[in-house]
Amino acid sequence: MLWRDLKVWQVYGANTDVGKTIVSTILCRALQRRASQNGLLYLKPVSTGPQAEADDRRHVPGIVSQCISQFSKPLSPHLAAQLDGDGSVFILNRHVTDQQLPDQRQISASDHDIIRKVKDHLTKHSQAGGRYAILETAGGVLSPGPSGSVQADIYRPLRLPTLLIGDSKLGGIGTTISAFESLHIRGYDLDSLILFDDPQWGNFGYLEKHFARHDIPTIALPLPPARRQDPKDDEAVLSDYYQECAESSTMTGLVDFLQQKHFSRISKLTSMPSQADAVIWHPFRQHSIPHNIIAIDSAYGDHFQAYNQESDAALASPTPSNSGLTPLAAHAPPKSLLTPLFDASASWWTQGLGHGNPNVALTAAYAAGRYGHVMFAHAVHEPALDLSYNLLSTLQNPRLNRVFFTDNGSTGMEVAVKMALRASSIRYGWTKDEGNTPVAILGLKGSYHGDTIGVMNCSEPNVYNEKVDWHQPWGHWFEPPSLIMRKGKWELSIPGEMGPVESTQTFNSLDSIFDFTSRKEDAARYQAHIEATLTSLVRDQGKRFGALIMEPLLMGAGGMIFVDPLFQRTLISTIRSRPELIGPPVENNTDTSTADWSGLPVIADEVFTGLYRLGRASSSSFLSGPEDSGTPSASSPTPLPLPSSIAPDIAVHAKLLTAGLLPLALTTASESIFQTFLSSSKTDALLHGHSYTAHPIGCMVANKALDEYRRMDTDGTWEGVRQPWSPSAPTGSTSSLPIYSFFPPTLVTNLSHHPRLDGCFALGTVLVLKVASEGGGYNSSATASLQARLLILLDSDGCGIHSRVLGDIIYFMTSLTTTPEQVERLSKTILQALDQE
Amino acid sequence: MLWRDLKVWQVYGANTDVGKTIVSTILCRALQRRASQNGLLYLKPVSTGPQAEADDRRHVPGIVSQCISQFSKPLSPHLAAQLDGDGSVFILNRHVTDQQLPDQRQISASDHDIIRKVKDHLTKHSQAGGRYAILETAGGVLSPGPSGSVQADIYRPLRLPTLLIGDSKLGGIGTTISAFESLHIRGYDLDSLILFDDPQWGNFGYLEKHFARHDIPTIALPLPPARRQDPKDDEAVLSDYYQECAESSTMTGLVDFLQQKHFSRISKLTSMPSQADAVIWHPFRQHSIPHNIIAIDSAYGDHFQAYNQESDAALASPTPSNSGLTPLAAHAPPKSLLTPLFDASASWWTQGLGHGNPNVALTAAYAAGRYGHVMFAHAVHEPALDLSYNLLSTLQNPRLNRVFFTDNGSTGMEVAVKMALRASSIRYGWTKDEGNTPVAILGLKGSYHGDTIGVMNCSEPNVYNEKVDWHQPWGHWFEPPSLIMRKGKWELSIPGEMGPVESTQTFNSLDSIFDFTSRKEDAARYQAHIEATLTSLVRDQGKRFGALIMEPLLMGAGGMIFVDPLFQRTLISTIRSRPELIGPPVENNTDTSTADWSGLPVIADEVFTGLYRLGRASSSSFLSGPEDSGTPSASSPTPLPLPSSIAPDIAVHAKLLTAGLLPLALTTASESIFQTFLSSSKTDALLHGHSYTAHPIGCMVANKALDEYRRMDTDGTWEGVRQPWSPSAPTGSTSSLPIYSFFPPTLVTNLSHHPRLDGCFALGTVLVLKVASEGGGYNSSATASLQARLLILLDSDGCGIHSRVLGDIIYFMTSLTTTPEQVERLSKTILQALDQE
Repeated sequence: MLWRDLKVWQVYGANTDVGKTIVSTILCRALQRRASQNGLLYLKPVSTGPQAEADDRRHVPGIVSQCISQFSKPLSPHLAAQLDGDGSVFILNRHVTDQQLPDQRQISASDHDIIRKVKDHLTKHSQAGGRYAILETAGGVLSPGPSGSVQADIYRPLRLPTLLIGDSKLGGIGTTISAFESLHIRGYDLDSLILFDDPQWGNFGYLEKHFARHDIPTIALPLPPARRQDPKDDEAVLSDYYQECAESSTMTGLVDFLQQKHFSRISKLTSMPSQADAVIWHPFRQHSIPHNIIAIDSAYGDHFQAYNQESDAALASPTPSNSGLTPLAAHAPPKSLLTPLFDASASWWTQGLGHGNPNVALTAAYAAGRYGHVMFAHAVHEPALDLSYNLLSTLQNPRLNRVFFTDNGSTGMEVAVKMALRASSIRYGWTKDEGNTPVAILGLKGSYHGDTIGVMNCSEPNVYNEKVDWHQPWGHWFEPPSLIMRKGKWELSIPGEMGPVESTQTFNSLDSIFDFTSRKEDAARYQAHIEATLTSLVRDQGKRFGALIMEPLLMGAGGMIFVDPLFQRTLISTIRSRPELIGPPVENNTDTSTADWSGLPVIADEVFTGLYRLGRASSSSFLSGPEDSGTPSASSPTPLPLPSSIAPDIAVHAKLLTAGLLPLALTTASESIFQTFLSSSKTDALLHGHSYTAHPIGCMVANKALDEYRRMDTDGTWEGVRQPWSPSAPTGSTSSLPIYSFFPPTLVTNLSHHPRLDGCFALGTVLVLKVASEGGGYNSSATASLQARLLILLDSDGCGIHSRVLGDIIYFMTSLTTTPEQVERLSKTILQALDQE
Repeated sequence: MLWRDLKVWQVYGANTDVGKTIVSTILCRALQRRASQNGLLYLKPVSTGPQAEADDRRHVPGIVSQCISQFSKPLSPHLAAQLDGDGSVFILNRHVTDQQLPDQRQISASDHDIIRKVKDHLTKHSQAGGRYAILETAGGVLSPGPSGSVQADIYRPLRLPTLLIGDSKLGGIGTTISAFESLHIRGYDLDSLILFDDPQWGNFGYLEKHFARHDIPTIALPLPPARRQDPKDDEAVLSDYYQECAESSTMTGLVDFLQQKHFSRISKLTSMPSQADAVIWHPFRQHSIPHNIIAIDSAYGDHFQAYNQESDAALASPTPSNSGLTPLAAHAPPKSLLTPLFDASASWWTQGLGHGNPNVALTAAYAAGRYGHVMFAHAVHEPALDLSYNLLSTLQNPRLNRVFFTDNGSTGMEVAVKMALRASSIRYGWTKDEGNTPVAILGLKGSYHGDTIGVMNCSEPNVYNEKVDWHQPWGHWFEPPSLIMRKGKWELSIPGEMGPVESTQTFNSLDSIFDFTSRKEDAARYQAHIEATLTSLVRDQGKRFGALIMEPLLMGAGGMIFVDPLFQRTLISTIRSRPELIGPPVENNTDTSTADWSGLPVIADEVFTGLYRLGRASSSSFLSGPEDSGTPSASSPTPLPLPSSIAPDIAVHAKLLTAGLLPLALTTASESIFQTFLSSSKTDALLHGHSYTAHPIGCMVANKALDEYRRMDTDGTWEGVRQPWSPSAPTGSTSSLPIYSFFPPTLVTNLSHHPRLDGCFALGTVLVLKVASEGGGYNSSATASLQARLLILLDSDGCGIHSRVLGDIIYFMTSLTTTPEQVERLSKTILQALDQE
């Protein structure tokens, strides 16, 4: 949270007993001198120990002071809360002045409640014209709070500018630096270190130098006076001490510095959009069309903390007014410049364990500290090795047993294509120079495999690639039958190329769509079409095909197309069972007798859709039907081996792989694809490598991500999400649905009836809405206005939604740790925004 | 360091006064029960306070005990060392048994010396058949050592398995977790947490749960007995306490666990090469040719800690021996399984600030904690914005003012090519479909721009790309004149295509090569050749060219070719001054009158050679001569603007950009290149983006890297490196050399005379040796055997060299923080290895 006028600092202690309350008091007194009446709020969300003890050194007359949870025992709050029992916490509010804040009687010990309370207090203080607030944290940086979470995690969603009270005792250098590091890896900004200057241990001098290297100033305060026997004496001496300290040039300087820091923070944040406009060439942006740039200050869990200049009242041009009255904006209560926005594109499909996850940050730092990056050519390190085995066992694909590392989905797919084309060319005896065009690929219309030239060539000509000078569409793309829910029914659109005219079939349930044994007629129709097409392309036109490439089930970038899984499995089975459609293999080719692939190598581009994005470790698993052994079902989530009949020969994984932290991709391949590249000559090897290949930080984080995903998949974490999708059929029944979504079925059904929508569906973490519009197409303004509305329509937690649109499609995605409660809030807001249309 | 038989643990305290010595004593007694006589070494490298105090609780009869530095005052060692003054430290060695270790009188306080001593002690203990060692750290994890460095940094090069003694007092939960985090981000492996179970504060219960989440067991010990008044009583009670604890099932269990951990660590490390062989598809590796796989356990500074199975005596097949004697290996003294290897390829040109740099790790963790990854489309965040401005100001290229983010050098170059081809196609009115082949590029033979298909198409056909089915060489590549030093002289080879025959010129100094004003004749010859070639290609053959692409000065991947900078600058100037050689622009093209480029957009691929790799922020700066304004010189290192005449229109940066941590690339472009993509249609935009585009962790680390590089460039850090390269000419003279190397000129000259070499050169951080061989070419066995020898030829610090070869070239690279002393050790080893040939 960040306001223009209200300046808030959170005070953390490097340890208990470092004089946090004394320093806070001095700081409050120093701020009080600049604040108007009631301009300073002192907030102590959690306090332990008897009131008198907690409070006897508060020497700031007239301060507004709030304590949210008070525990009677001077223990770590997680124990104190247990001893006091539920509900025995009470509010301490002794220094309250005339400006009392409401609901002081309410008690609370949960992290969410504490944060909500703090937010409320600060918001009200800001609205009442408050200028300063100090939030004092109980215990040390990582002391447990009432719920058991550590302090720095509890308050992380607020990410307030921080002051750290250093430890001036023996050993305090180490504890102070460690406390800083624990704050820092949780994304906190430390404005200043403050500690007593005890010449006996000399911590100040050392720490000042150390923190200067982090551009953080260190402030020294004189040691507090020794306690006098006579309470009156003690009080007087202490009072003098406070006054001297508060009025010292050191404290005056600190307050000046902190104010300046506040203003430069605001100035930087609010100028970021225009500064970005001046130098950054944004991906996929037409820079000559003005577009609102969101400045993301930080992110935590599902949310960005974002500055949206379009909703900044201070930037709104004053409404011209004939009456001469001040425009409304000037009267509006001050708002935080930062709004939490739900990251509904999961930052381009990357988010799995939530933004700013402290365990992920710590894992990344461990890998950075243990290795940095290390050479991977002819070398190996533990994170890469562990990840290789981990991914293979996660995928449960009996064909895959080799792992190639690259940096992102595009490069991962480039490698996959290089692998497949070589394997096919060897089998069919093709050379590069024959024919007019290179060996091509088979794919689906609407596919997307990345933005490097090689993988752009794997997509049919479209608006994304038509202006790229080196793009050459080298393939044939089938128009796929696709699914969408409309008015409670599932509609399957069969494209015109497959029959006399485009046609539609209706299904009552997803269950019946995935019941492939009952859809033999559809399969036969698909197969006939595939065979006829290949015959025409290969025998009649002499085309050469070297790979079948598919994004299983969902084409996420090419317009969010839910492809009929029966079509994809029929494509695979037809090519595998009738390899003669592709061509005759060269004679005496040892490969043909030993290789484990038939017809064409099948590449599953699971960059968007793999690793639980659609609810399963591998989205290829959705192509298997109940008649295949080992079909996973909602009620039996334990990963089962993918049936070999539909298992791809090559699969590419990225995005969710690294839990949403940084780029890394893995291309997995079968043994016989690997063997294609074996010979006595180095030039036959797959000569591909990037300098940061298998960087340990990415591998270590990916390992952790896969472990966490598997844990959530199997320990019941997602039970509440899956349950509403289970059909009433007895569990264990072979017809039980293999599919479910984080968005509940009742929501999807409701949305499918919404007059503003032309259909919808939900798969795994993804909810897709097709917005009804007259024109439709790429530049739909209806979707754009819905998207804009969602940024400012706040839910009960004060959060908006940051979503992405694709033409007339708007979509919403959760991470794998998003809670059902959060999905409910999201759903409500989406429905509300649609109704406002 | 890691031995098969000797098990070593380093004991860290979460704080001072947590009972570290008591726990160490208990641990030693527990280990002593399993050790043979003298099998246990207790090492306390630094001790503060009076000997008696430091020692009075040592109750381990018969232990070998060593203390390296003892300070008389019980202060933080960095202060105690100051108080005691230089040389006043002394060795404490009271519990020494009959097995006394040598040089106990030697004193030391520097980090390097401490590490060396610890290594020596442990090595000797291992050689004497020692089974256990405990290294007790003074103070807390981040308490400063004698030199001022914090403990965890001092001992990081050893990266011993660690035991943390937790803080059982109030506040100890937070300090213990923070201490762990500080160890963890420095790459330490914590085997166990040990603390007293004080029921008053309940820290054990909380910490046990917390550390279980990190798979670290927590061990509780009973509180030590209260001190008795009577010293004898006290001694007796304490002795009982030690005995009970040491023999308790808890400690027995811990020792069992630690031993098991040791063996599984060894088993994992030694099996990594074969496990990797089973699943990993290595980059650039012909898997059917057996190759030694190095297992990298960790890395720090310039060195890997690596396991090389080829030098593991235990794996050596016993030499068949007719005499029936045990083979030699069985008698060899035990060696550490891990050898430090200098990372002489800088892990494929990536390393800038050293491996495992704790500040880089902390920076990465901060970005991960503050953001994770966040969406970059229509959004901005501080690290990306700061990095954009930082890079532009670092490059000092007056043409560049736009920054496009991608993930690695390949994708960065793909974007650069897309930019340039579009700009040219618009200017010259070319469409994709005209002609038989797409618009091509101009480049140099021997170039390399990455492994994605698009940028592979920018290199001439060669062994790396000939077998890639979709590779299409779309360009013309000039054979470049190149430089190498032989027998103290610089030889310039002029390729045959430029004259009647291949010819050679000799220069006495680098100075005269870079003195372009004196080389007007060469320039004229180059220009004539370029003009004739272009005329033939464009006018006669109808070729269309859309970009000039070059790696300035050094082609690092294509055989380490030092290109005559005069040829590159002549190529640029010819194309810029004679645009009619490329073709007539379309009429009424507004672009032509406003654009800031002429002829062709010039792309500088500085992925390998930029950002100080060759000693300057931009390697393009080497193409400017003294006659251009603002030529930087060795004596005036402050970055000066690149002269516009040779400045590229597009430049690509990666590798060193992120200090050697993780992938990120930036493509910078001029305003008019950017404007090429502006229109009212979104489809005209540069539709390119990766999901982790501008990931905050990469941007934040890159920002820090650029700051550090600039600091070292300007604050005199590299003065000692530059000085030997300065010509005797008065400083400030315009003829002063713009070039220098981390490898001193005397070394280069010496090497150029070496009979085993056929030439060499050094540029910036890179030393290139051309190994003389009969056959030469890609499979040179002379280079391979030199490379193999360097892995096992250890320097005075016990370190080998891990290098890379390219055919008959072997090269050595430093990071930007490598010290002259390290370079000296490296140089000695290289010369020694050459002499052994």
